[in-house]
Amino acid sequence: MRLAVMGVGAVGRAVAELAGQYGHDVIGLADSTGAAMGDPLDIEEALARKQETGVVGERPHEELLAADYDVLVEATPTTLGDAEPGFSNAAAALSRDRHVVLANKGPVAERYADLRAAVEESAGELRFEATVGGAIPAVRTVEDLGPERVDRVRGVLNGTANFVLTRMAAEGLGYDHVLAEAQELGVAEADPSFDVDGTDAALKGVIVANVLREARGEEALSLADADVTGIDELPTSALSLAGEDGRTVRLIVDASASGVRVGPRLVPENGTLAVTGTQNIVQIETGHAGRLNLSGRGAGGAETASAVLADVGRLPPR
Amino acid sequence: MRLAVMGVGAVGRAVAELAGQYGHDVIGLADSTGAAMGDPLDIEEALARKQETGVVGERPHEELLAADYDVLVEATPTTLGDAEPGFSNAAAALSRDRHVVLANKGPVAERYADLRAAVEESAGELRFEATVGGAIPAVRTVEDLGPERVDRVRGVLNGTANFVLTRMAAEGLGYDHVLAEAQELGVAEADPSFDVDGTDAALKGVIVANVLREARGEEALSLADADVTGIDELPTSALSLAGEDGRTVRLIVDASASGVRVGPRLVPENGTLAVTGTQNIVQIETGHAGRLNLSGRGAGGAETASAVLADVGRLPPR
Repeated sequence: MRLAVMGVGAVGRAVAELAGQYGHDVIGLADSTGAAMGDPLDIEEALARKQETGVVGERPHEELLAADYDVLVEATPTTLGDAEPGFSNAAAALSRDRHVVLANKGPVAERYADLRAAVEESAGELRFEATVGGAIPAVRTVEDLGPERVDRVRGVLNGTANFVLTRMAAEGLGYDHVLAEAQELGVAEADPSFDVDGTDAALKGVIVANVLREARGEEALSLADADVTGIDELPTSALSLAGEDGRTVRLIVDASASGVRVGPRLVPENGTLAVTGTQNIVQIETGHAGRLNLSGRGAGGAETASAVLADVGRLPPR
Repeated sequence: MRLAVMGVGAVGRAVAELAGQYGHDVIGLADSTGAAMGDPLDIEEALARKQETGVVGERPHEELLAADYDVLVEATPTTLGDAEPGFSNAAAALSRDRHVVLANKGPVAERYADLRAAVEESAGELRFEATVGGAIPAVRTVEDLGPERVDRVRGVLNGTANFVLTRMAAEGLGYDHVLAEAQELGVAEADPSFDVDGTDAALKGVIVANVLREARGEEALSLADADVTGIDELPTSALSLAGEDGRTVRLIVDASASGVRVGPRLVPENGTLAVTGTQNIVQIETGHAGRLNLSGRGAGGAETASAVLADVGRLPPR
């Protein structure tokens, strides 16, 4: 397929670099600084230019949106509320009957109904595996089981928060100390608020809940509907107390058709949900298939790009 | 879709009972005693008849093979060598350009090349998720990642053997004692040899290896190519020794494009591979996506049927 990639962060870059290995051509790469286009695009050159000059290309990104691609890969930063520019990029591609694969959580978490309406009008399809759990095939597995038969999805969906909790429990260190360490290691961003206050995990829960609700004919949710508590106020004492009891604390997302709850929860120390470090886990509860556990790398450019490219591989040819 | 179900064991029965909930019609149900047909079939009646008389239907099963179905679900017992009657049932459906979904491991493990040749000649497609790890989406995840990018698949793929090992380690009981207990509980069959000698796990490993090898243009393997050791000779002392060292023993399948090895292996007591009881786990190693762990119920009628019906859901309409 011919891919147009919007967003030149870790995921957009990895998608562009790996697409060839999956048999796809990249015809354009754009971010807020502009667009680079070619048929196929010289990816190395464009990424080198971005590195050196900060500008990926000189063309306006509207030109790329209007170009001849099969799939728009939307990997611009996740934004809340109107979820722009991700939403408009996706809508523009769908209005031209192109497929859209999202790595950007904003449109599916904040404007799912608007996005579905755009899909209804389009011959293109929408996929968004990469928005939940990085390399973990959470959305595809829910689809394959049938969302109407999935009762509940729980999991650990933020690697930064999980790294902090794991270190706090293992070393008995305080939150601020471990967070600083995580930032030095590049596991936490300079502004880690979305990771530690539960927002990022909640967005993923809302996306899963929207898939479960759509299958039941229920209205989509947004972040505002989720009940969210972060780990930023968690005292080290809570972790040591849990430890004495053979348990530990994890930031657990609990999503079902009836809603989304995110917060620190006690889990068995060696239990399935107690993944360590930056690992993520998704636990899918179904009637017939019982409980499925999927764990792996929940973030990272190449890992998330592999989910994007698996989505591309599931799209019908245009 | 219109389903013809061959085999009226736990899986065939569950497929017939659940198909309606997935929006499919069952037009026939057959086993070695004969076939019941209808449009749609009265499944309750047919299964009740099977229960009471031992005979599911009076028609010859060739009549069902020749009937107007979209998908043949092959759920007759797994046989080795020529993998009959499963192979001929699948080949007959493919020769009529029908889709085939296998729950029967024999044809994909023992005659993969013959099966692929039949698919080449057919407008029908072949799927076999249910042959590896019951409800666990192992084959679909390998397909979505791209088999050519999957380096290795390891896992615990036999629930009976895992139950026996878990009990032996937990209670310090001997193999024969625990096996007898498992048979009382219905976890082990009257003749558990395929489960405890590693054959069943090896068949699943061969199936995965065949998928990885096909993507690399390499010849298919069969059970004879696998290096297999069971748990039937394992002394309790081996488990207690492992325990003292914080480890335990699991019957591990190790499959890659270069071959299949099955045997008791030491694994960390609380590690990912140390699933307990009848749980199964599949660990998929890839370049870009890192290591994915999928665990859940590896057996059971409804669990395996859910994999069959997920395969049916992925088939193109005829």
